[in-house]
Amino acid sequence: MALGPRFFEDFTVGLRFRSVGAILVTAERIKSFAAEFDPQPFHLDDEAGRDTLFGGLVASGWHTAAVAMRLIVDSDLGLSGQGAGVAVETMRWPVPVRAGDSLRVEGTVTETRLSRSRADRGIVKFQTIVRNERGEAVLEATHVVMALRRGDSPDAG
Amino acid sequence: MALGPRFFEDFTVGLRFRSVGAILVTAERIKSFAAEFDPQPFHLDDEAGRDTLFGGLVASGWHTAAVAMRLIVDSDLGLSGQGAGVAVETMRWPVPVRAGDSLRVEGTVTETRLSRSRADRGIVKFQTIVRNERGEAVLEATHVVMALRRGDSPDAG
Repeated sequence: MALGPRFFEDFTVGLRFRSVGAILVTAERIKSFAAEFDPQPFHLDDEAGRDTLFGGLVASGWHTAAVAMRLIVDSDLGLSGQGAGVAVETMRWPVPVRAGDSLRVEGTVTETRLSRSRADRGIVKFQTIVRNERGEAVLEATHVVMALRRGDSPDAG
Repeated sequence: MALGPRFFEDFTVGLRFRSVGAILVTAERIKSFAAEFDPQPFHLDDEAGRDTLFGGLVASGWHTAAVAMRLIVDSDLGLSGQGAGVAVETMRWPVPVRAGDSLRVEGTVTETRLSRSRADRGIVKFQTIVRNERGEAVLEATHVVMALRRGDSPDAG
């Protein structure tokens, strides 16, 4: 398998990244995602959503979070294949995603440290904001991932 | 639309809930979910996963999180239709989910408070643990949801 482009040493605090493109969220996918993973009325049906606190159909927050991951994988962060998500800190959904919204992500590496238990890897923390086409933040999260060190690091295992 | 069975007043600190059933995670769904939302080698292909820190195919953490939501919606918590997720605090994936794993959830309401800005709703916090069939925790999270108060609450709007 070809290794991804970035190792632990390449993730430096302050590094910024962004989507290469946008992802359009359709009514059909909102409903089909919800039917499988989050079958609540406001995620399944426009009419049923009208009488809820959302006033209409909105995407499951977990659908938005999954789209966010795709935006991150496709971004210029260069995470793919090299890292493994270990945690998320404080993920918020300030504004719901509605059918036709087009989402992009931007983010910043905020912290890096070597693993305490494994010499061959480190921990990288980055903050992301996903915005719709009106610039409203629909998801804010802090991701914690594990990244491999370069094989030629002085004490990497 | 029929309102869900529980209002803010029904979520009391210490309330415990659990899955009504288990959800089986198949290799096919791991790969198709990843192809759409998290196309990294260890989520797409057994062989490609073998050379990574996972040593084989594992589910995207966002797939696991989505399955967790389905387990919560189907649980006896009675969230459906009544609540809206506003945030997640500290979500962790201690052990990866592999093809053939069968997942269940259990949880506890840990905090409730009235909304500061909206008299008709309150905030409910609950902790969840998703376990595989061997009892290993594969996802731990604290969810923060907004729930409507009963219409007959003294000062509900």
